[in-house]
Amino acid sequence: MPTKKLNIGLMGCGFMGRTHSNAYNQVNKFFNLEYQPVLKAACARKEDEQKLLPFAKNFGWESTETDWRKMIERDDIDVIDIVSPNNTHHDIALAAAKAGKMVLCEKPLAMNGAEALEMVQAVEKAGVANMTWFNYRRVPAITLAKQLIDEGRLGRIFHYRAKYLQDWTISADVPQGGQTLWRLDAAVAGSGVTGDLLAHSIDTAVWLIGGIDTVSAMTETFIKERALQDDPSQRKPVLIDDACAFLARFKNGALATFESTRYARGRKNQNTFEINGEKGSIFFDLEDAHQLQYYDHGDDSHVHGWRTILVTDSDHPYMKQWWVPGCVIGYEHTFINALSDFLKGLETGVPVRPSFRDALETQCICDAVLKSAKTCAWEKVNL
Amino acid sequence: MPTKKLNIGLMGCGFMGRTHSNAYNQVNKFFNLEYQPVLKAACARKEDEQKLLPFAKNFGWESTETDWRKMIERDDIDVIDIVSPNNTHHDIALAAAKAGKMVLCEKPLAMNGAEALEMVQAVEKAGVANMTWFNYRRVPAITLAKQLIDEGRLGRIFHYRAKYLQDWTISADVPQGGQTLWRLDAAVAGSGVTGDLLAHSIDTAVWLIGGIDTVSAMTETFIKERALQDDPSQRKPVLIDDACAFLARFKNGALATFESTRYARGRKNQNTFEINGEKGSIFFDLEDAHQLQYYDHGDDSHVHGWRTILVTDSDHPYMKQWWVPGCVIGYEHTFINALSDFLKGLETGVPVRPSFRDALETQCICDAVLKSAKTCAWEKVNL
Amino acid sequence: MPTKKLNIGLMGCGFMGRTHSNAYNQVNKFFNLEYQPVLKAACARKEDEQKLLPFAKNFGWESTETDWRKMIERDDIDVIDIVSPNNTHHDIALAAAKAGKMVLCEKPLAMNGAEALEMVQAVEKAGVANMTWFNYRRVPAITLAKQLIDEGRLGRIFHYRAKYLQDWTISADVPQGGQTLWRLDAAVAGSGVTGDLLAHSIDTAVWLIGGIDTVSAMTETFIKERALQDDPSQRKPVLIDDACAFLARFKNGALATFESTRYARGRKNQNTFEINGEKGSIFFDLEDAHQLQYYDHGDDSHVHGWRTILVTDSDHPYMKQWWVPGCVIGYEHTFINALSDFLKGLETGVPVRPSFRDALETQCICDAVLKSAKTCAWEKVNL
Amino acid sequence: MPTKKLNIGLMGCGFMGRTHSNAYNQVNKFFNLEYQPVLKAACARKEDEQKLLPFAKNFGWESTETDWRKMIERDDIDVIDIVSPNNTHHDIALAAAKAGKMVLCEKPLAMNGAEALEMVQAVEKAGVANMTWFNYRRVPAITLAKQLIDEGRLGRIFHYRAKYLQDWTISADVPQGGQTLWRLDAAVAGSGVTGDLLAHSIDTAVWLIGGIDTVSAMTETFIKERALQDDPSQRKPVLIDDACAFLARFKNGALATFESTRYARGRKNQNTFEINGEKGSIFFDLEDAHQLQYYDHGDDSHVHGWRTILVTDSDHPYMKQWWVPGCVIGYEHTFINALSDFLKGLETGVPVRPSFRDALETQCICDAVLKSAKTCAWEKVNL
Repeated sequence: MPTKKLNIGLMGCGFMGRTHSNAYNQVNKFFNLEYQPVLKAACARKEDEQKLLPFAKNFGWESTETDWRKMIERDDIDVIDIVSPNNTHHDIALAAAKAGKMVLCEKPLAMNGAEALEMVQAVEKAGVANMTWFNYRRVPAITLAKQLIDEGRLGRIFHYRAKYLQDWTISADVPQGGQTLWRLDAAVAGSGVTGDLLAHSIDTAVWLIGGIDTVSAMTETFIKERALQDDPSQRKPVLIDDACAFLARFKNGALATFESTRYARGRKNQNTFEINGEKGSIFFDLEDAHQLQYYDHGDDSHVHGWRTILVTDSDHPYMKQWWVPGCVIGYEHTFINALSDFLKGLETGVPVRPSFRDALETQCICDAVLKSAKTCAWEKVNL
Repeated sequence: MPTKKLNIGLMGCGFMGRTHSNAYNQVNKFFNLEYQPVLKAACARKEDEQKLLPFAKNFGWESTETDWRKMIERDDIDVIDIVSPNNTHHDIALAAAKAGKMVLCEKPLAMNGAEALEMVQAVEKAGVANMTWFNYRRVPAITLAKQLIDEGRLGRIFHYRAKYLQDWTISADVPQGGQTLWRLDAAVAGSGVTGDLLAHSIDTAVWLIGGIDTVSAMTETFIKERALQDDPSQRKPVLIDDACAFLARFKNGALATFESTRYARGRKNQNTFEINGEKGSIFFDLEDAHQLQYYDHGDDSHVHGWRTILVTDSDHPYMKQWWVPGCVIGYEHTFINALSDFLKGLETGVPVRPSFRDALETQCICDAVLKSAKTCAWEKVNL
Repeated sequence: MPTKKLNIGLMGCGFMGRTHSNAYNQVNKFFNLEYQPVLKAACARKEDEQKLLPFAKNFGWESTETDWRKMIERDDIDVIDIVSPNNTHHDIALAAAKAGKMVLCEKPLAMNGAEALEMVQAVEKAGVANMTWFNYRRVPAITLAKQLIDEGRLGRIFHYRAKYLQDWTISADVPQGGQTLWRLDAAVAGSGVTGDLLAHSIDTAVWLIGGIDTVSAMTETFIKERALQDDPSQRKPVLIDDACAFLARFKNGALATFESTRYARGRKNQNTFEINGEKGSIFFDLEDAHQLQYYDHGDDSHVHGWRTILVTDSDHPYMKQWWVPGCVIGYEHTFINALSDFLKGLETGVPVRPSFRDALETQCICDAVLKSAKTCAWEKVNL
Repeated sequence: MPTKKLNIGLMGCGFMGRTHSNAYNQVNKFFNLEYQPVLKAACARKEDEQKLLPFAKNFGWESTETDWRKMIERDDIDVIDIVSPNNTHHDIALAAAKAGKMVLCEKPLAMNGAEALEMVQAVEKAGVANMTWFNYRRVPAITLAKQLIDEGRLGRIFHYRAKYLQDWTISADVPQGGQTLWRLDAAVAGSGVTGDLLAHSIDTAVWLIGGIDTVSAMTETFIKERALQDDPSQRKPVLIDDACAFLARFKNGALATFESTRYARGRKNQNTFEINGEKGSIFFDLEDAHQLQYYDHGDDSHVHGWRTILVTDSDHPYMKQWWVPGCVIGYEHTFINALSDFLKGLETGVPVRPSFRDALETQCICDAVLKSAKTCAWEKVNL
């Protein structure tokens, strides 16, 4: 049973606000932890107050704020959790760190590497706990992939190939900007699929394989102009990348391909990766998140084959906390698992990963990718 | 926002106690309902009090009881929810109904049809709301299957084939009886896989296709003797059915095969059904619960094929309440969805299904199956 | 290079005539054998001569006959290969054996067990080589399954489940009888799916697991009346079984379910079996004939999973004779593989299986199944 | 029945010699054609005569040659079919065309674009029929993909992604050069996976989608040195590309990724492509060559899904010529289908595709890819 309270201040009340609120409510019911998060305050802009109030009531937030600076000034807040649009991460994180708060931040960490670097410096200077919510590291099958690699089951890595495919912006009638579609507005999102989807793929890749050295990328914007969500009478150029693909060389010599798009008809949330090593291979697809495919070259040769591991057993990562073998968990549980790891990090003194510094690396790779798409040349990742 | 409180008294604190407690905590955060369940009291046997207390604290139950009759006497309880072993359902339900409480009961409803009939009569005489927790009806893909059938997409039904395969009792070292292994004790469970697993398969089948007329069954107990969980020095004969398979004829003329076992190495929770109709077919597998396979004979002939429907879109059953397309829900959500339907039933006055009466039909089919396995003859289902 | 000629006389020129003719033409090009079949004569009824002549020319048959008794009298024929409808097998086989010819026969061996027994007695009395064309034993993945079982990889067998599903007779407009639809005419075919499809499933099962002791079956004829192919103005009752399902107990104690139908919309040739043993499980589906699924309980527990073995490697049965790893073979190759085994049997003196006697066992099981469907009782298999 | 003979002279007796010989033997037995190929002569180098003679006898070649120039001089040869290593294609093709022979050539057409161009000019100047054996166009599922695109089912194309993965050269013990491993010798093969595997992927892509404008590529040689097959005591640098990946922009604006390797542990012959269009998507995998995956955005939204089309029905390309629905064909049939199309082209006067000119385009794309890998810059495809 938890013995320490941890007061949370949530910045934002959109889709990620929901997943995080749920995590704060659920984590202690399933994980045995010293710390118990308290849903102290939720914050949104004044103009979003009509959305904020029922949101806060629904999830049990004790109070609300409409000025994020006031939230940071509150003494009863231990942790600032940033789930607001990308262009707000930097300023909130810097102020929170300065105020000595722990800082959690949704991905992508920042609009670009320069911002991200300042955020890293701020939390490290302040010496505050910090985590970036790359929640997919906590999909049990992906955590298992990491475990298999750490066990030496793949041997020398030759290839990595990642895709993150969706199809929800194909229609030219989808507007851009506004409260729910800011991901299509470059001024708010920083980039399109690169920051939104490839950041996930890159974080996973670097975690599993190591750093990326150089990249060659291309991007495309298929629908050149869209109406504004907040003012449908206005049409503006679309400035984000609808699609992005890049070649990469890892520092360890492995080759990689990465691709992301929101124009892959029929793919809803197909975040896949395949790793080919000398001794074995792994394949994962988020649309079948309860499975990990694994090929073991050490098997007897006439029974070589790709195994579908149903990642629901009690000896699989995180699963003992949940139900029984054969019973899957869902999308939201990746956030609960991540939160548990953060709290366990506070308990043990071993900081959780991915830290802001880890996310900085991903951000720098995204920067190199976007630069390469512009220069049409191979670009080195600058850390 | 809910305006009416509904006080819940939970009978039991085992695995199903966890799934139901979670549902009571979560339902209003995701469904817009008039009623809000209040976790009023949780009850277990006196000898299980050391398990009950932390359970209750963890999930937020306001109080505990160790005498189920006392719980039923409490005026502050509106609903009795029975999640205790099968041999306790009947007496609790009868007392609860007599006391005018609404009654929810885990499956199988009873030890046999005779008990179940008394339970139906009790709740119907008392006129109290009632539901049996056949939670798999609320797997969105299964609810979608029902919808496709109701839309007439399959036409005349020729075949139904169901399997429910697990492998967790293969080892002769697994003991029987006791707090966590009562499902292997016939005196507590009533039967083996028939009541535990096939009851699910049958409930789904009858819901989707209609009533079953006659059955021919076989059962087997592969491990004839097991130690007792509570006293490992004692070995007793195993009296449950480890495996059961039966042929059936539906009233509408369709043929069916059903099979269940806990000896299917490699199958963890493989609850599948396939329906073949004149115009189309459907296939479902609980191990890939986010998918429904559908074959539409109306497609152009050169593109005929089995479609894998990823049941995560906002126009799929229940999914609008959860996350976004491509994001799956887990095992526990089937209970939350079911609870939402129960509460919506109170709100609208249209009683939720499956009622106790629906579960009675499943129980009578189970009885006919077990009887057929003994008589080695076709048996008619007696309702 | 082959040194001995073997003169073949083919009885029939339908679909199976094509697959066998192709096998005779191809076998020596891919297998290193002493014997070389010579396409000596093809035979069909006088009324089918207009079909026989181009057939024979196309595949290179040196001569034709329109009286099967004359074919048997020919001195230049070593082997009689029977691919004519089921009701002709018995008489041809008896005459051929009496004439001292080797006899190959398509499945099912006969109209019933009594006929089959006489055929067995005839070939055994004559001491002539004989084989029944249960070609699916020569699907490399099925042969591999046999090998895995023989290696002891499954341990004690608990369950066997087989399906053979098709959908080509759903339309009430499909006629019965005649040259291409005699499989719907009970007087010619003997039975419906039982002899046509379940015979395959049973042959495989008995080969892999051993003999069947008792069965409980049901059959159904969904379309009660069909026009005659040869005279569409006439409609006659359909006397075959459109569908058949049965429960079975193997002599070794394993339980089984078998099902076959031609009314499973969307299933074209879905011949599947799954075997669950204490140490492992196997699954096969003819619609993905190049794969075998295998679950090995001996794997490390966190990487347990069903492996998809791509059965195209040179250490897989038969595959070294064909192309290179990753290159599949097709339906027709099962006949070529079988023929190679027959010829190798002549060479080594170790008779090929399945012999007529093996096929008799399958026939007796089919008889018990059909009898059980009529008596609505469990029936013992009489060998 | 065929009425015209076509005398074939085969150059080479290796793996492709087997597939082509088989095609010449089989094509008229399954396709109704005017022309009948005659296996007139097979040719190999003098030093390979001990391999050539049994090869020729086995497949029925009437004669053999050990000097390719002599073969071309023979008056009784109508068609020169080149299946010898890549570095021999150019000279043979030029000589054959000059001699007025029809010329068929295995892929890749040549060592590079310059050679290929001369070959195109030679056959076009001579006005002789010609075809490049990109046999995968004749996988029925790929031909069906072409048909679906031509029917307008995909709409505007956004994305194309192709992979061709194998794993047979991972071991450092595999030697290079020699009779069976010349594909690892750059002097004979021209390139590694680019010419051997990506040429297939590119041919398919250009056929389905249209021309490629620019590419950015990377290649890698993982094992830097290998022994020689013909002299294991000698080790030489490996000069081929073991792996190659590239980004591409199609002329129609679609984006593409291509990747090939022989270091993808567990992938035997995984040649895949996915096409995402506004109205639908398609996916193909050669390891499941009997299937085509298709997503139709026009389906009712709650039954949207990827269909697995089992490409074995009589209304699927080529399948009516083979067996019955549900019965697959194998790798070798793609050559027979291709040969049938070539012969049909002679019959109808509509030249078969892919011609040498089609293959030239693929060769130029390969050249641009290899150049880009060296320059580390985007390169334009020069036709």
